[in-house]
Amino acid sequence: MAGVDEVLNAVDAGLDASLARLSDFLRIPSISTDPAYAAACRQAADFAAEALTGLGLAATVRETAGHPVVIGRTDTGAARRVLFYGHYDVQPVDPLDLWDSPPFEPRIATGTDGKTRIYARGACDDKGQVSTFLEALRALKTVQGKLPVDVTVLLEGEEECGSPSLPAFLAANAEELKADVALVCDTGMWDPQTPAITTSLRGILHTEFTITGADRDLHSGLFGGAARNPIHVLARILAAVHDDTGHITIPGFYDDVAEMPQAVRDAWNALGLTPEAFLGPVGLSVAAGESDRSLIEQIQSRPTFEVNGIYGGYQGQGSKTIIPSTATAKVTMRLVANQDPAKIAAAFKDFVQARLPADCKVTFGKSEGSRAVLVPPDSPDLAKARTALQAEWGTTPVAIGSGGSIPIVGQFKNVLGMDTLLIGFGLDDDRVHSPNEKYDLTCFHKGTRSWVRVLSALA
Amino acid sequence: MAGVDEVLNAVDAGLDASLARLSDFLRIPSISTDPAYAAACRQAADFAAEALTGLGLAATVRETAGHPVVIGRTDTGAARRVLFYGHYDVQPVDPLDLWDSPPFEPRIATGTDGKTRIYARGACDDKGQVSTFLEALRALKTVQGKLPVDVTVLLEGEEECGSPSLPAFLAANAEELKADVALVCDTGMWDPQTPAITTSLRGILHTEFTITGADRDLHSGLFGGAARNPIHVLARILAAVHDDTGHITIPGFYDDVAEMPQAVRDAWNALGLTPEAFLGPVGLSVAAGESDRSLIEQIQSRPTFEVNGIYGGYQGQGSKTIIPSTATAKVTMRLVANQDPAKIAAAFKDFVQARLPADCKVTFGKSEGSRAVLVPPDSPDLAKARTALQAEWGTTPVAIGSGGSIPIVGQFKNVLGMDTLLIGFGLDDDRVHSPNEKYDLTCFHKGTRSWVRVLSALA
Repeated sequence: MAGVDEVLNAVDAGLDASLARLSDFLRIPSISTDPAYAAACRQAADFAAEALTGLGLAATVRETAGHPVVIGRTDTGAARRVLFYGHYDVQPVDPLDLWDSPPFEPRIATGTDGKTRIYARGACDDKGQVSTFLEALRALKTVQGKLPVDVTVLLEGEEECGSPSLPAFLAANAEELKADVALVCDTGMWDPQTPAITTSLRGILHTEFTITGADRDLHSGLFGGAARNPIHVLARILAAVHDDTGHITIPGFYDDVAEMPQAVRDAWNALGLTPEAFLGPVGLSVAAGESDRSLIEQIQSRPTFEVNGIYGGYQGQGSKTIIPSTATAKVTMRLVANQDPAKIAAAFKDFVQARLPADCKVTFGKSEGSRAVLVPPDSPDLAKARTALQAEWGTTPVAIGSGGSIPIVGQFKNVLGMDTLLIGFGLDDDRVHSPNEKYDLTCFHKGTRSWVRVLSALA
Repeated sequence: MAGVDEVLNAVDAGLDASLARLSDFLRIPSISTDPAYAAACRQAADFAAEALTGLGLAATVRETAGHPVVIGRTDTGAARRVLFYGHYDVQPVDPLDLWDSPPFEPRIATGTDGKTRIYARGACDDKGQVSTFLEALRALKTVQGKLPVDVTVLLEGEEECGSPSLPAFLAANAEELKADVALVCDTGMWDPQTPAITTSLRGILHTEFTITGADRDLHSGLFGGAARNPIHVLARILAAVHDDTGHITIPGFYDDVAEMPQAVRDAWNALGLTPEAFLGPVGLSVAAGESDRSLIEQIQSRPTFEVNGIYGGYQGQGSKTIIPSTATAKVTMRLVANQDPAKIAAAFKDFVQARLPADCKVTFGKSEGSRAVLVPPDSPDLAKARTALQAEWGTTPVAIGSGGSIPIVGQFKNVLGMDTLLIGFGLDDDRVHSPNEKYDLTCFHKGTRSWVRVLSALA
């Protein structure tokens, strides 16, 4: 059988054809959150299924309550099976006037820095990243006649709107989807020279709550001084969540927080990420979290409490002299292992109730959450992937945490009993979710080569 | 000349026509704080000027930097002249969905308690109250051929947004506006059976401020824990304004607060206003202000700090995982003698600045304010008005303080050298500034009769 080098040569030789296929994928405006694009989402699902069929996978488009899921699989009796997860849907494109070229007309251009990039909505997130995997399959199949492992590909169409249909699909098709390890290509590199494997993801807990005082808005002159103001109550509750050192004071909040091993913290801190470098591009310069933690711990391995939105009373021009009836805060907490979203949600409700003065009521919105995910640092598959990435990039890959949340990864572990390797080739400046999204051709090309090496190593 | 009883009979006979005129006035959406309603404010001014002309006054609509002022006057050479002040502008109507009928489509309805009321924005504050005076003039003029005193009517269109143009107008037209006493109909009764003359008013200070963190909204997963959240900063500042006993902690805030004489406090406390009675109708039961003050002091003679509105970040359905760039609070403080609005505004800015963490900026909106007002308790006109009200209502009127603010009253004293009689017929449950504002027809009817008696008594 032909060796890995020949497969890599085939990737190189086929780059233009690979880009042409990616461009066709990018031309489909599969914006999942907007019902106006439902047909485009189905078109993207059909496109992906055809691509999988073309690679010799048994591919099906499967109905859900929302946009369909695409499944493709090989069953060659290989010793090992991987489950690859990605998504064919994309974010909305507004504000359209900030795009330099139409978001669904892919454009390849070379910048003044000499780097060539493909520009389109989804160029990176996630059509470009998914395509690195599909093109690696193509090269492996073409050169070696078969894949080094059996593969199940799972592409969903609702990642950009919260994956509402996926948990039920996963539970209903658990046997079909089981594999030895899951692979996800929806994360980033450490920098343009250094690949990364994301080994932890924070969990998330969404909630919102409304404080109600009087049963109507009151005149702040006639009632001011005697009537409880729910904005004041809300402010006092929110102000009490963090102490002066940035720690969260909700009783029990840190009880189940697992510390990263010192070796991991040392490795992170050795990356030397400074507040100036990380926060400078958004106009900040001071790490504002727990004062006894480094910035990289604050964003990767420590839980957070953030108010995402607040409102109450008059918000128009000028002033309105009222004591409002209600005030509301929308909150998300990022969780780390081993915090339980349900337990934290209950602790937070108790925290609010304990601070509720006489005469005030509180109502909570639905609390929804997912646990944090940790990839075991000693997994043999992780070691194999590292070696494969090192061979491709000539740089030692770094293991990083992501402060973001990819709930499906927790479900792979909890429902299917699988660990996940999160390997992606996005860069910090790819403008995912923003106008002029792009993917560097180097990332696309070497990302494809990386998957050839990783899949061969996992065999 | 026909006597007062014949005038009162004319008021009774003309009630339906009076209500029809009030309804026409109420149909004009003269929301002064919102520039979108500027044309409606002018329409209301024109409407008022025509009404004054119809009563035989020389009426003019006078330009200001903001909404116009309406002036009407008689010059019959009567022994005395009164200056009547009111306003034709109204508060905003949001939240619109809480109104049982459209706020600018006046509705007259009889409740299960047998009382008939008119519902609309401005039904009480201040179009209904102003109309009691205008309808009294109409009956006096119709029955007696002339008014018992010369009258200057001054109606402004910016009372609900802080009267920014009025001080300059008053100063520029001082000679024209001088009178023996000023009358204001923008206050309330003690209870539905007991009229009141308001002898003290709190001052007011409006301000708003915005905290800015990052220069854009940030992903709360990627940045959460490290990036300063301006909502948290705002909540901490607002939470620090009151201590646990309800006192305001802004340095110097109480320095110039004058205590009411013990006799006044004794008289107030003798009224026996309980938290249950005052707050019960709005769904509250506990006096939430300074814990060492009675409820009546909390609302009449003690200064306050109230957040009238707050907003920042995402406020739509569901959740959006952002750390917002900005958060804003709209604030009013009620001031008592001898607090200086400018001094308090400066103290508040210092208070905010002192609590601003690194990386955050604050911007303040315009700070506008007026001092508190005290009416001399021994004025002969006050005694005449008391007797007139006693005759109409059959109950001894009480002298009360108002927690609200009518900045013009201080200017009448300071610029024109006039004391003011504050006589109004609003009730605590009129929902001024709230959805479903109403005015009891008894208040409208007997209020009109009261002015007939008061004007006759002042002659």
